[in-house]
Amino acid sequence: MDLLLVGYGAMNKRVAALAEDRGHTIVGVVSPVETPDCPYSLFSSFDESLPNADVAIDFSHPNLTKEMLSSDLAIPIIIATTGEKDTLVEMMKEKAKSNPVFFSANMSYGVHILTQLLQTVAPMMDDYDIELIEKHHNQKIDAPSGTLVKLLDAITEEARPDANPVYNRSQVTEKREKEDIGISTIRGGTIVGEHEVLFAGVDEVISIKHTAQSKDIFANGALKVATQLVNKENGFYTYHNL
Amino acid sequence: MDLLLVGYGAMNKRVAALAEDRGHTIVGVVSPVETPDCPYSLFSSFDESLPNADVAIDFSHPNLTKEMLSSDLAIPIIIATTGEKDTLVEMMKEKAKSNPVFFSANMSYGVHILTQLLQTVAPMMDDYDIELIEKHHNQKIDAPSGTLVKLLDAITEEARPDANPVYNRSQVTEKREKEDIGISTIRGGTIVGEHEVLFAGVDEVISIKHTAQSKDIFANGALKVATQLVNKENGFYTYHNL
Amino acid sequence: MDLLLVGYGAMNKRVAALAEDRGHTIVGVVSPVETPDCPYSLFSSFDESLPNADVAIDFSHPNLTKEMLSSDLAIPIIIATTGEKDTLVEMMKEKAKSNPVFFSANMSYGVHILTQLLQTVAPMMDDYDIELIEKHHNQKIDAPSGTLVKLLDAITEEARPDANPVYNRSQVTEKREKEDIGISTIRGGTIVGEHEVLFAGVDEVISIKHTAQSKDIFANGALKVATQLVNKENGFYTYHNL
Amino acid sequence: MDLLLVGYGAMNKRVAALAEDRGHTIVGVVSPVETPDCPYSLFSSFDESLPNADVAIDFSHPNLTKEMLSSDLAIPIIIATTGEKDTLVEMMKEKAKSNPVFFSANMSYGVHILTQLLQTVAPMMDDYDIELIEKHHNQKIDAPSGTLVKLLDAITEEARPDANPVYNRSQVTEKREKEDIGISTIRGGTIVGEHEVLFAGVDEVISIKHTAQSKDIFANGALKVATQLVNKENGFYTYHNL
Repeated sequence: MDLLLVGYGAMNKRVAALAEDRGHTIVGVVSPVETPDCPYSLFSSFDESLPNADVAIDFSHPNLTKEMLSSDLAIPIIIATTGEKDTLVEMMKEKAKSNPVFFSANMSYGVHILTQLLQTVAPMMDDYDIELIEKHHNQKIDAPSGTLVKLLDAITEEARPDANPVYNRSQVTEKREKEDIGISTIRGGTIVGEHEVLFAGVDEVISIKHTAQSKDIFANGALKVATQLVNKENGFYTYHNL
Repeated sequence: MDLLLVGYGAMNKRVAALAEDRGHTIVGVVSPVETPDCPYSLFSSFDESLPNADVAIDFSHPNLTKEMLSSDLAIPIIIATTGEKDTLVEMMKEKAKSNPVFFSANMSYGVHILTQLLQTVAPMMDDYDIELIEKHHNQKIDAPSGTLVKLLDAITEEARPDANPVYNRSQVTEKREKEDIGISTIRGGTIVGEHEVLFAGVDEVISIKHTAQSKDIFANGALKVATQLVNKENGFYTYHNL
Repeated sequence: MDLLLVGYGAMNKRVAALAEDRGHTIVGVVSPVETPDCPYSLFSSFDESLPNADVAIDFSHPNLTKEMLSSDLAIPIIIATTGEKDTLVEMMKEKAKSNPVFFSANMSYGVHILTQLLQTVAPMMDDYDIELIEKHHNQKIDAPSGTLVKLLDAITEEARPDANPVYNRSQVTEKREKEDIGISTIRGGTIVGEHEVLFAGVDEVISIKHTAQSKDIFANGALKVATQLVNKENGFYTYHNL
Repeated sequence: MDLLLVGYGAMNKRVAALAEDRGHTIVGVVSPVETPDCPYSLFSSFDESLPNADVAIDFSHPNLTKEMLSSDLAIPIIIATTGEKDTLVEMMKEKAKSNPVFFSANMSYGVHILTQLLQTVAPMMDDYDIELIEKHHNQKIDAPSGTLVKLLDAITEEARPDANPVYNRSQVTEKREKEDIGISTIRGGTIVGEHEVLFAGVDEVISIKHTAQSKDIFANGALKVATQLVNKENGFYTYHNL
């Protein structure tokens, strides 16, 4: 495939490296910021005359994503930009009338599967206590992780609308309440990312866990989606309907 | 509920204890073998005049189960007997025309959920390597466990019909083949039972694991099914359609 | 062995059952409270004429333990009573001049091993981040567990005197500090007890974990100590010098 | 530090990258094979006039290592070459009379710690069943891993001289024997490396586990040793006496 990259931060650098490993070509990069280390044709905006490409992969910033969605770019588009979700999704759906547009705030296919598993199983586990655990490296400043929040949403959306997230049990001397969902946040070393959901019942525990070994899972996810999206009709896609 | 127990081995002794803890009554036990420690009314066959009961729970032997299915017992029946599966299921389906009949070779609700999860997720994981691991106590003589075989079946049935189970990698010096499914069997101490399925892909691993803490999960599963089955119409039930 | 039980609560009932399984004899129980379900000779105080025994096992209350330590009981004594630790240890050391006396606030041999491992390894792991995780059932009211506190003490005592326990990371948006030790407390179902210590470094993690399957590990630990203590000289023993 | 690299395969390329990240300098590379992508001064043998360096790091082949040990290279030397162990160690000890020489077949500090832990704890765990489990990527052709064999040696050397490694339990219908040590080998995806030792006893399990996230742990280990070795007296060092 011929790929147009939108943004050239850490993630799209990995997309470029992995894409070339697999025989794809990077035909250009759109980035309004200076990227002196970029070996590809560089375009500062969507107003320029862009090269032909099979698909665009956007790991950038909401401002650039909005510019792209307002432009006349007429190829399949994969968007992994986070922030301003409501505004962006509305614009994507508009754009999807004339292009195939895919969006996911977490491009990892494995995390998508984890979310699917939770939506399948949570409604069948009324009698079980749910606990969430995530582990990341010692440089991460937010807690819990965005992915854990996404998993929690997948549980509370339908199966447990009354769930009560509990972040600290050391301050109280009380039994766990049925609707509690304990959230544990572990930080250490260079751990890339681990998310686990426990369903604890009478004399049995079911655990569903996702372990990431490198951030390449996001770049890989985008490339895998790209190979599918180029054959799709116009429309708005997520992992749920691809 | 008033319960009739069919068989009085280790499992139905636990069913009796847990049932009484929850306020149910054991109205009698059908067992052709001597059970001197049984504190309940004992009946040696289904020809005797049995007490009224809301439901029968059978953890026994195919011979006794067959006798029950041929008798005129006219109450909801839960069958957890293993062995002679094809014959028994045929007889159960006949009996189910006049009674609600539930069957599962593994009464643990958690193991049922694990199976469901595999059937949901395996078809979406074509690019991932699958490995199965089970752990049990040091007195267990068979390997792998019956539950692991059941999980393997759930995977091979649809998603991986060409799967090749691999039990020993120490004899060869070769890369893993895509269709291999490694089976690891760990034995030690008094471990009650742990089953894990790994989906290993590029830079990510998904693990689904079930841990049993006591054999009560089977007795508990039967009692939980009982409370549902007493309200069901005649028919043949498993965990998939209860 | 002939055993004298001091206290007849949940733990000593298990000691009695397991001891008899192994061919030992319970020659009597000392308990000032009514224990109508006790099938053994019952003595309300140490003033009574007690039967001959090879060893006494005390899972009781500091008051009864103090009475025992002030009495003229002249056999090896195993003490697992918790509370008033300083007072009791002083009295034990006095008693140990004339009897072999063993004390541990946690009779599980496995937890003792875990503590040993931490004391061995923590001083060699200066560059690694330490995190502690424990899991227990949903009826437990205190958090973190007493055993986790004991493990934390084993780490801070020598290797990490400046450690700063962190119970909640969801309130701040800051990197982990080197001296932080995250404490995660998971509650659900009937989990008996799990304690894990993580050492997370650059691209590697070492985990040391203890999983308890039943409370019998405490009764078993006491019986195992008993078989050793009956052959010991007078003195004060713990798992560190037995 | 000024570093001389011996060999320029995958491992020493990572050593070079990580060393420069930390402000060290690569003053040259000794390699008899063509390395067109090497940006450093290249020397085909130890007969050439080599630049001054603080320490040499050798991740190469026994032939080149032997050449180095026979040369008049007079700086601290770190050797991570595998193969021909007995011959090489003898030569190292000779060289160590005039240089500080460090050797480890596995430069990961974490794996070293794991070995230490096993040597500490195995003698205290006579009553526990030991099982070993390792996981690696699907391209690995040998099983079990060299590191697992090293861990097994650490156990059998003193604590369990009569241990009987068991690689396949699916062929027999027999209880586990006390002296068995089950070896499980899991292969899938791109798993870098995980080694776990289980001690399973009555109602409790202790697990000690090492997880590698990248092969950089070996390069990092070598660099960490380098900073210590430059200050050492002449002699033969391993992780046990550094």
